[in-house]
Amino acid sequence: MPTYKAPVQDTLFVLNDVLGYERYSNLPGFSDATPDILEAILAEGAKLAENVIQPTNRIGDIEGCVRHADGSVTTPDIYKDAYRQYREGGWMGLAAPAEFGGQGLPYTVHSAVGEYLSSANMGFMMYAGLTQGAVAAILAHGTEEQKSTWLPKMVEGVWTGTMNLTEPHCGTDLGLLRSKAVPNGDGSYRISGQKIFISAGEHDLSENIVHLVLARIEGAPEGVKGISLFIVPKFMLDGGGAPDARNAVSCGSIEEKMGIHGNSTCVMNYDEATGYLLGEANGGLKAMFTMMNEARLGVGLQGLSIAEVAYQNAVAYAKERLQGRSLSGVKAPDKKADPIIVHPDVRRALMTIRAFNEAGRALILWTAIKSDVAHRSGDEKERQAADDHMGLMTPIIKGVLTDKGFDHAVMAQQLFGGHGYIEEHGMSQFVRDARIAMIYEGANGIQALDLVGRKLAMNGGRAVQAFFKEVGDYCEENRADEKMAPLAKQLKKGLNDLQAATMWLMQNAMAKPDNAGAASTDYMHLFGLVALGYMWAQMAKSSQAKLAEGANGASSFYDNKLVTARFFMERVMPETSAHLARISSGADAMMALPAEAF
Amino acid sequence: MPTYKAPVQDTLFVLNDVLGYERYSNLPGFSDATPDILEAILAEGAKLAENVIQPTNRIGDIEGCVRHADGSVTTPDIYKDAYRQYREGGWMGLAAPAEFGGQGLPYTVHSAVGEYLSSANMGFMMYAGLTQGAVAAILAHGTEEQKSTWLPKMVEGVWTGTMNLTEPHCGTDLGLLRSKAVPNGDGSYRISGQKIFISAGEHDLSENIVHLVLARIEGAPEGVKGISLFIVPKFMLDGGGAPDARNAVSCGSIEEKMGIHGNSTCVMNYDEATGYLLGEANGGLKAMFTMMNEARLGVGLQGLSIAEVAYQNAVAYAKERLQGRSLSGVKAPDKKADPIIVHPDVRRALMTIRAFNEAGRALILWTAIKSDVAHRSGDEKERQAADDHMGLMTPIIKGVLTDKGFDHAVMAQQLFGGHGYIEEHGMSQFVRDARIAMIYEGANGIQALDLVGRKLAMNGGRAVQAFFKEVGDYCEENRADEKMAPLAKQLKKGLNDLQAATMWLMQNAMAKPDNAGAASTDYMHLFGLVALGYMWAQMAKSSQAKLAEGANGASSFYDNKLVTARFFMERVMPETSAHLARISSGADAMMALPAEAF
Repeated sequence: MPTYKAPVQDTLFVLNDVLGYERYSNLPGFSDATPDILEAILAEGAKLAENVIQPTNRIGDIEGCVRHADGSVTTPDIYKDAYRQYREGGWMGLAAPAEFGGQGLPYTVHSAVGEYLSSANMGFMMYAGLTQGAVAAILAHGTEEQKSTWLPKMVEGVWTGTMNLTEPHCGTDLGLLRSKAVPNGDGSYRISGQKIFISAGEHDLSENIVHLVLARIEGAPEGVKGISLFIVPKFMLDGGGAPDARNAVSCGSIEEKMGIHGNSTCVMNYDEATGYLLGEANGGLKAMFTMMNEARLGVGLQGLSIAEVAYQNAVAYAKERLQGRSLSGVKAPDKKADPIIVHPDVRRALMTIRAFNEAGRALILWTAIKSDVAHRSGDEKERQAADDHMGLMTPIIKGVLTDKGFDHAVMAQQLFGGHGYIEEHGMSQFVRDARIAMIYEGANGIQALDLVGRKLAMNGGRAVQAFFKEVGDYCEENRADEKMAPLAKQLKKGLNDLQAATMWLMQNAMAKPDNAGAASTDYMHLFGLVALGYMWAQMAKSSQAKLAEGANGASSFYDNKLVTARFFMERVMPETSAHLARISSGADAMMALPAEAF
Repeated sequence: MPTYKAPVQDTLFVLNDVLGYERYSNLPGFSDATPDILEAILAEGAKLAENVIQPTNRIGDIEGCVRHADGSVTTPDIYKDAYRQYREGGWMGLAAPAEFGGQGLPYTVHSAVGEYLSSANMGFMMYAGLTQGAVAAILAHGTEEQKSTWLPKMVEGVWTGTMNLTEPHCGTDLGLLRSKAVPNGDGSYRISGQKIFISAGEHDLSENIVHLVLARIEGAPEGVKGISLFIVPKFMLDGGGAPDARNAVSCGSIEEKMGIHGNSTCVMNYDEATGYLLGEANGGLKAMFTMMNEARLGVGLQGLSIAEVAYQNAVAYAKERLQGRSLSGVKAPDKKADPIIVHPDVRRALMTIRAFNEAGRALILWTAIKSDVAHRSGDEKERQAADDHMGLMTPIIKGVLTDKGFDHAVMAQQLFGGHGYIEEHGMSQFVRDARIAMIYEGANGIQALDLVGRKLAMNGGRAVQAFFKEVGDYCEENRADEKMAPLAKQLKKGLNDLQAATMWLMQNAMAKPDNAGAASTDYMHLFGLVALGYMWAQMAKSSQAKLAEGANGASSFYDNKLVTARFFMERVMPETSAHLARISSGADAMMALPAEAF
């Protein structure tokens, strides 16, 4: 059975020592989460993840969700109590406004704990994640009445939420959407259509389900400009706001999926269901976009979560499994073989995963802080810079950390040999679960296009120029520091490759847009390497500072960071030059074949 | 439902035009497989794969194998007729000696058809593959009596075979093996022990199962020097050689696996089962090694097979799925969106898979021809050179083509978006099935160690030097040819990186063996890129020759090869420099952390 221990010390190191969490204490919410309280919250979240949620993971995969003849869906039995504890602990509304029953704490804290919870059971946590997404949408676009009607029970976790975008013929290209909304004359609408791949679409964990549904109001323009967002509850509310009559929305079937079996992914049928317009008519796409950054960051976090728990289990196995002898001489003479962690190729896998996870955690928390600043700072310039950063980093975090999260779950599984291929050790589940994060909330190819096609050029390239300047200045400032120089030099080499790739795009993508599409995935990964490398440089610097101070008896913790930083620079960063070479080769060979040639 | 079409024209191009298949007509077996007959065999194999075996693939995944209370195992119903047709067509013994009922055709032809059959249903074809492995072992090590007793029915496919190596505590490190063999005094042995992960261990497709079992004869030396190989039949034979009483071997359970559900992967219990020594006492490891090259090539072939069928289905989907508009202007104005094959990032995935598959096919067939030469040539020097090549290429083909086969199944699945994550389209199955090929028959980390630790240095580096000379000479010969020059230049750059990495290993791995282990996986992939690049250079050259001749109306076939060759050189080969950089960074950062730090 897989195990999990939340990396609380690592989170605190990143927040306190690397990102200077205390600097933000003047922001709303941060004042309630002083470093002491932060530590206590992380410890509580860790306990919930380790003791309550993690034990549901394998069972959720095996039992899955069951749809019954009446259209009802039951989740695995063991989920009920876990969800109750999650709800009663107030975790659903950790970062939600106090006005609606939330704790109003920073999104940063929510993200930090979110990593632990998704490591414990990704499929289970999606019930909460979708609800939080729906809460964000209603907060941003709802009327006061809508907010007071729907939010308190959702923030409490008594009701859950969903997002209904995809239709059978319509995924990325929402302009093709066919679901219809017809005005009832009383302000409400009749919603009809079929939605697929609806996570948490129907289940037995909550008393009501608040579906957010994209549909086209009769007579609306074609394409994305004619899409509106609606609130469609599973149960209509009575005069007192309590669930009452059933609305005309039902689960047609549960998808048979590769993984996340514990989440009920539904085909949802809307048959003149009553719905309420959320935000402006024909403003549905815009409404979706306003909450997309956080939703995508949440999926990037899932990539990290699975890579972390897969890593921990691979480490345990590598220390325990005896096979072969070390190339540099017997290490466990009392045993018939050495533990496989002595083998360099096993180390290569473990160090690679570790190096990505620690930097990925820092990148996510850095960006989460920017999200808080963007939403809570009183300084407009600061808000704008933070928002720029978040917009730029979101596709990178989503695309890179989920691609790598999957690769690294596979790498961790590989260390188990045949024992990883059978389901018993849970490594197969990590791989199967991690796979979806590359696809949903915008497939990673779409993230890459969002980066290259929108985020790069936005506001005249303001966000990307700010990032280049920050990293470039950092390299410059640290190249004279003897200990930092090797890291700064390698980071600068990566930054040079990224800047050269950016220049190539500026010169070649305007005249021939296919050059941008051809470069996009490589560019996203190249950018990710530089961003993660920047995190490693900063983590190394903070570690050196702590060691210089005496490190309070935790010197090995900081020494390990320095080794891992070096590993990242030596073993991972060299990839930047291959990305640059591929990008600069352009779209010609890629696009030369006629479609019939495939 | 997934579809499949065997790439017969591609196979013929590689064999006839690139590898000069006719040159080998003086070898035994090749004279029976003239180009005309070869083409007919491939066409028949294609029909079997497409019409009979492919339709069993999804059903095999869904139904899986079932163990009953009495220890018997039933395979999916639909397998019975497919296996009967495979057997009656004489495919099991295609390359087996005529003396035992085989057709004595080249291993090359067997490999060419083998690709199609594994693309059609990998889990199903393992029943045959394991049998062919056991036939090879008995052929190489059996007494005349053993051969005449066991081989005819196995070659006919009426009996099947297995390989029993792994035990719960013992995988890669066979020296830890505990299964016991006690002499009965009559030349036979009583075999006891438990074996796990035994593919095709128990099933209902054959009248008898011939288990080859590694065990330790009582009193034998410890470690790998005390291991012997035994024939242990499921049913003992009566005086007439027909299956009679049940032997004391049984299936304890079927493993719950991530994929290849159609193959019964069993825990096998031997409880004083009667066994017959195959080969010399304590010579079991050597006996395993003699057939390991072909078995590993067979697994490399599976990597290609799954990548090919996944590619074909992704192509079909990309041509049909309408989503978004081309960056370079609307391509399907009569439709609401363009097919996604217009998008460069979709092309990138398709071209990448295609470029690996076509070169992988060439590399496998080239090596299969070398296997035939090594076994059938009358010229000792030629045999030796061919055997050198095969030994060198085997870990590369196994390791690289299965790593890439899996990556590319994932890439193909990605193009389906959410539709790839649900089981309906069969893309998830390709990913789940492909995953095992990276693990079994020596996990890919072991392939890399075999390459770096054994194959490189063997006979003073004779094999690797011959390969470097061949590729170097080829680059030199072609650099003046205007059309070949860009390809030759890029190939030479890759070769330079490979030679630099080899030099680095020679200078740094002797004194510090961990440097070899730390480099191994990167070195294997670097070597693979150069070998595949060499295949592309040759395929391009053959295509240019065909185009110059007039190409017999197939000019687009050859034009497409030239485009794909260019794509491989521009988009894939740049990876060699990143591998070299990683290799040259050595083992220090990788090995610096104490085990407790993980």
